[in-house]
Amino acid sequence: MNNSFILRGGIAFSNGKNNIITYSKGYVVCVDGVCKGAFADLPDMYKGLRVYDYGNNLIIPGMSDLHVHAPQYTFRGIGMDEELLEWLSRYTFPEEAKYANLDYAIKAYTYFTEDLRRCFTTRAVVFATLHNEATIELMNQLEKTGVITYVGKVNMDRNGGENLQEASAEQSLKDTVAWLDAIAGKYKNTMPILTPRFIPSCSDELMRGIGKLSKERGIPIQSHLSENKSEIAWVQELVPESTCYANAYEMFDTMGSKELPTIMAHCVYSDRLEMQILKKHGAYIAHCADSNMNLTSGIAPIKKFLDAGVNIGLGTDVAAGSSMNMLKTMLISLQASKMYYRLVDTSVKPLTFEEMFYLATEGGGSYFGKVGTFKDGYDFDAVVIDDSKMFSMRDMSVRERIERMCYNDADVSIRDKFVKGKKIFSAII
Amino acid sequence: MNNSFILRGGIAFSNGKNNIITYSKGYVVCVDGVCKGAFADLPDMYKGLRVYDYGNNLIIPGMSDLHVHAPQYTFRGIGMDEELLEWLSRYTFPEEAKYANLDYAIKAYTYFTEDLRRCFTTRAVVFATLHNEATIELMNQLEKTGVITYVGKVNMDRNGGENLQEASAEQSLKDTVAWLDAIAGKYKNTMPILTPRFIPSCSDELMRGIGKLSKERGIPIQSHLSENKSEIAWVQELVPESTCYANAYEMFDTMGSKELPTIMAHCVYSDRLEMQILKKHGAYIAHCADSNMNLTSGIAPIKKFLDAGVNIGLGTDVAAGSSMNMLKTMLISLQASKMYYRLVDTSVKPLTFEEMFYLATEGGGSYFGKVGTFKDGYDFDAVVIDDSKMFSMRDMSVRERIERMCYNDADVSIRDKFVKGKKIFSAII
Repeated sequence: MNNSFILRGGIAFSNGKNNIITYSKGYVVCVDGVCKGAFADLPDMYKGLRVYDYGNNLIIPGMSDLHVHAPQYTFRGIGMDEELLEWLSRYTFPEEAKYANLDYAIKAYTYFTEDLRRCFTTRAVVFATLHNEATIELMNQLEKTGVITYVGKVNMDRNGGENLQEASAEQSLKDTVAWLDAIAGKYKNTMPILTPRFIPSCSDELMRGIGKLSKERGIPIQSHLSENKSEIAWVQELVPESTCYANAYEMFDTMGSKELPTIMAHCVYSDRLEMQILKKHGAYIAHCADSNMNLTSGIAPIKKFLDAGVNIGLGTDVAAGSSMNMLKTMLISLQASKMYYRLVDTSVKPLTFEEMFYLATEGGGSYFGKVGTFKDGYDFDAVVIDDSKMFSMRDMSVRERIERMCYNDADVSIRDKFVKGKKIFSAII
Repeated sequence: MNNSFILRGGIAFSNGKNNIITYSKGYVVCVDGVCKGAFADLPDMYKGLRVYDYGNNLIIPGMSDLHVHAPQYTFRGIGMDEELLEWLSRYTFPEEAKYANLDYAIKAYTYFTEDLRRCFTTRAVVFATLHNEATIELMNQLEKTGVITYVGKVNMDRNGGENLQEASAEQSLKDTVAWLDAIAGKYKNTMPILTPRFIPSCSDELMRGIGKLSKERGIPIQSHLSENKSEIAWVQELVPESTCYANAYEMFDTMGSKELPTIMAHCVYSDRLEMQILKKHGAYIAHCADSNMNLTSGIAPIKKFLDAGVNIGLGTDVAAGSSMNMLKTMLISLQASKMYYRLVDTSVKPLTFEEMFYLATEGGGSYFGKVGTFKDGYDFDAVVIDDSKMFSMRDMSVRERIERMCYNDADVSIRDKFVKGKKIFSAII
C-alpha cells in the first residue's frame, strides 16, 4: 500500500462540532498522506487510485488522547477508592520512582506503547516521569509505533518525597535541556513537550525557568489545572499572590500562546475567570471525565467551555482513568456531561453525541494541526472498525452505529489504523 | 464433571457488605451443586473430590442482574441523547411492538440469551414484552442457557399507543393468567414474575388485579419506581390520592412482602418516605446507574439506602443501560456513587469497592435465596476469569485484580461459568 489510495466503507466524520457527515458506502481519499475529502460517489479525478473496500466496516478519523501518563499504565484500575492527593502519594509517586531503573522502564513502557498502537488513538500527548533515560526510552518505543505523540519529561522539584523529586529548580532545568538536546532531530513522529507536573510539584523558580525555556526553544507546555478542591487550596497557599490557579501558571509565563498552546488537563473547577485566561492564551483543555469520576474530583462543565470557544479535546488520563480506549472515554464523558446538567446546573445542557464525537476527533486533533476529520487538506488519520459482532434486527445507519460503538465498545474491534496515510496497525497481521 | 468437585485458583467473595475474603491459591468446594465454603488449605474431608486447578485464574461468585429488558437488547446504545419518556416513545415502544411477531421474537431473543449465557451473570430478572407467545419463546430459550431467571410478560393497558397496549385491564389479566397456566411446571431454571411496566402504563384496575394475582399464586412482582422527574409528576397526576410513587404501588397491593419481595428498578428520587415503604415491604432496589446516567435521569443515593438496610442489587437495564456486562455496571455504579457524594450530598459517602462487589454478587443474589457468595450452604454459582492479558510489573493481589477487572473489563475474559454446580458456559468449548 503506497501513500495514495482510497478506503471504502461506512464513513463518519465531523463537519463542525454539531454535525457528523456519514456515507453508508462512501469513499475517503488519501493522496501522499493527506486527506482529499470523503464522498458518497468517487470523483472522476481519483478513479486511478487503488480502492481498498472494507465492505460494511466503519471508517472514522483517528482519535486524539490529549492527556495520558505512560508510567502509570501498569497499575491502572487499582486504588480507586482514593482521592487525588492520597492516590498520588500512595500509588502514583512510588510507581513513577521505579522508572529511575532503565530496565524497569524498558519493560513497563513496552506494554503501554503496544496498547497505544492497537487502540483508537492516532495522536497522543503523554507524560513520562522525571527521568531522562526512561523518557528517551519511551520516545524511542513510541517512534516505532507510528502514533504521533508529544512526550514530556516531568519536572518536579518539591513535594515528591525523597524518591521522586529533583534536587533543585536548577537541576531540573539542566536535566530538561539535556533531554531536549539528546533527542533533537532524532524522531519523525515524536515531539517533546515541557511538563511541569503541577504547581504543587514545581517551585516558582522552576516554573519561571520552564516558561522561559518554552519561549526560547518554541516547545509547548502541558500540565494540570483545577482538578480537585484540596489541590486548588494548596496552590493558593503556595502562590498566594495569584488570583486563581490558572493565573499562577500565567504569572510564570507557562500558559502559552495561540501559536504555542499549553494543554491543561482537567479544569473541573475552572470558573469564568479561568475560562477567560484559557481562552486568551489559546490553551487546550484535556477533558478527563473518567479520571475525574474515579478520583471523586467532580465534573468539568465542558459544554460551557465549548460554547465559549475554548479549545478542548479528550484525555484518558491513565491511570486515574483506567483505559486508553477512547470510546470508553467518550461514553463516560457523555455520562459526566448529563450528570452535570442534571445535578449541578440545568442551564448547561448535556453534550450531544455530535459534540462528543467532535471532541474525540477534531477537537483534540486540532492541537496537532489539520487533524481529526476527513475534510480536504487534513492529515489522513483513520481507523477502520469492525462492528459486525453487534447483532441487530435491522440495518443500522452509520450514525447509529458510531453512537452504539461508543456506548458499547466491547463488541467492536479495530481492523486497520492509519496515520498520515501509513497503516500502523492491522488486526490481520 | 459431576456435581461435586473443587475449583482451585485466586478466590474472592464477600463476607458481609464491607469485607471481601481472598485466597491467592485457594479452593472452593461444591457438593451436589451447593457450596461448602472456600479455603486457603483444603480440609481433609474434601480430599476425595476432584480438583480442577485453574492456575492463576480468578474465581468469584456469579453475579445477579436484577433488571434487564430482553426485547431491548437489539437496539442498545442508540438514541442516548434522549430522556426517559421521549426514549420510550421514540425507540422502546416501537421496538417492543415488533415482538407481536413470533418469528421476530425467536430471532431477536437468540442474541439476548446467547449474550446472557456468556456474561458474568448467573441469575437475572428479566422484562419481556406484553406478548404471551414471545414471552414463552424467551423463557424456552433462557431455560436452555442454564442461567436462573425470573421472566415477566409485561402488563400495560394504557399510554402505550395503538401498537403496544392491551385492550383492557381485564384482557391484560386474562392474558397473564393464560401465560402462567401455559408455563406452569414447564421449567427448572425459569420462573415467572408479574410485571406491570410502571404506573403510567397500568390502570388502577390492572394494578389491583396484579396485586391480587400475586398473592393468590405466590408469584412476585417487578416494576419501575421514581426513575425520572417527569415520570414521577405523571404518576402523581394519575394517582392523585397517593402520598408518593411507592405509596401508589402500595395502595394497589403490589409492593410485595418479605416472603415475596417486589423488585423496583431505579429509585433515583426515592426520599426517606419511599425508602421506609421499600424497607417495610422487604422490597429490592435494582440499582441501574448506567441507565440512569444515559437517560439523564440522575443518581440514586444507594449508599444511603444500603446503610438503612434496604435490599439492593444491581441492574444493567439494557437497553437504557448499554451492556449486560456486570463489570461495566459496577464501574459506572461506583462512578455514580462518587459523583452523588461530590455533587449532591457530601454526607453520603461513596460506595467502597467492597460494597459494590457485594451488591453485584450477594446483594442481588439474595433475591434468589442463598446465592452470591462462597459460604457454606450457598448455591454454587461461580465464574472463572482469565485476567492474564492485564499486564503488570508485579504480582497483584487478588483484591487488586478484582478491582482492576471492574475498572477495566476489556482485557478479562470468562473461562468457565457454573450455576448450582453445573458448568453452563466454557470459553474452550
